[in-house]
Amino acid sequence: MHSGRRQDDSERYRAILETAARLICERGYEGTSMQEIAAACRMTKAGLYHHVQNKEQLLFDIMSYGMGAFEQQVLEQVREIPDPVERLRECMRLNIHLVTGGCSKEVIIILHEHATLTGEARAFIDGRKKRYVRFLEDSFSEAVRMGRIRPVQPTVAAFSFLGMVLWIYKWFQPDGRLSAEQVSHEMVELLFTGLVSPPVAAVPAPGAPVLSLVPSAAGGGES
Amino acid sequence: MHSGRRQDDSERYRAILETAARLICERGYEGTSMQEIAAACRMTKAGLYHHVQNKEQLLFDIMSYGMGAFEQQVLEQVREIPDPVERLRECMRLNIHLVTGGCSKEVIIILHEHATLTGEARAFIDGRKKRYVRFLEDSFSEAVRMGRIRPVQPTVAAFSFLGMVLWIYKWFQPDGRLSAEQVSHEMVELLFTGLVSPPVAAVPAPGAPVLSLVPSAAGGGES
Repeated sequence: MHSGRRQDDSERYRAILETAARLICERGYEGTSMQEIAAACRMTKAGLYHHVQNKEQLLFDIMSYGMGAFEQQVLEQVREIPDPVERLRECMRLNIHLVTGGCSKEVIIILHEHATLTGEARAFIDGRKKRYVRFLEDSFSEAVRMGRIRPVQPTVAAFSFLGMVLWIYKWFQPDGRLSAEQVSHEMVELLFTGLVSPPVAAVPAPGAPVLSLVPSAAGGGES
Repeated sequence: MHSGRRQDDSERYRAILETAARLICERGYEGTSMQEIAAACRMTKAGLYHHVQNKEQLLFDIMSYGMGAFEQQVLEQVREIPDPVERLRECMRLNIHLVTGGCSKEVIIILHEHATLTGEARAFIDGRKKRYVRFLEDSFSEAVRMGRIRPVQPTVAAFSFLGMVLWIYKWFQPDGRLSAEQVSHEMVELLFTGLVSPPVAAVPAPGAPVLSLVPSAAGGGES
């Protein structure tokens, strides 16, 4: 019976986190009161404090839930892929899936309220974020070492990857004209294949206009 | 004399915006009071209200200043470049310069406080942002039509460009190990050349390990 109650409490708490995440997402952390969170959960404020110590604890728990979902649904799924390029491509696909799907609220809060947490709680979340950056840098470095990609600066490559993926929450509309699958497919190709025309287009066709013949030369000429 | 006073007022107001932007950047809009802004400007609160109607007006003016600097230093500099790929490359370079340079505070506020403004003020800033997205989409579309780049979805390309560039404020350290020029150069090459090895590496060298021979095939095989 005790464990049944613990189970109930944990499910209830999960529902509280879900509701709190929705409110904080809409109004910001500063703009959301514990009173409003309690009301949205159909609880009294005292009832809410039975589950959580204070508002900062709630924010930390939302971020931890989001980081946990990310680690489970993205990082753990790709970590063991032997080829670094396939690892990175699959990682981008799964991360886009997470950002465009059910965990978008938690992701937005992790990104937008990054400076709200303090002390150990902040250091703990920051450490988990840094592990992801390191994983991306290491994968890009490995791909360069293996000759799988041209030499790139791994930190810039890692943060370009992250910028593309995490910016999605600013513009993607789940019911918009682009599907999550389209965004994911296009974005993986953009970073990993780039914008240069496919190799076949680089072979001069007789009589073809000059501009279409030198896509990569024109793109890379001045750098 | 009147115009001299107006000149003084406008310089003074510029200094107020600069100080307010620094504080809002550090503490967030909600976390910064007009009292604190006045104190940081070495003014009384009444003196501050001589220059600005209220805090939302101040936020709007900071964002307008940032958008103006962006339009002048980036958009107007590249709009007339005839080749769409060179236009986009130069645009990315200049935008990175702005984000890593003196206007980073205003850029951060435009990005981070995007939902804080309301009504007409918000619509006005949003309209200016949308013009930039449209400019990027149009340039990508034109580059595809001209055969200068392979076919890409212009909206995804535009927001990938923006995500890479605007995410920089989250991680770039002006005194860090990467210079703004390095970041700019690497990022332009990442998007426009991609990660595929240069064409010469795609030609099988006798006895070279298999993995290094098929960089683009392995990268694009499963999509």
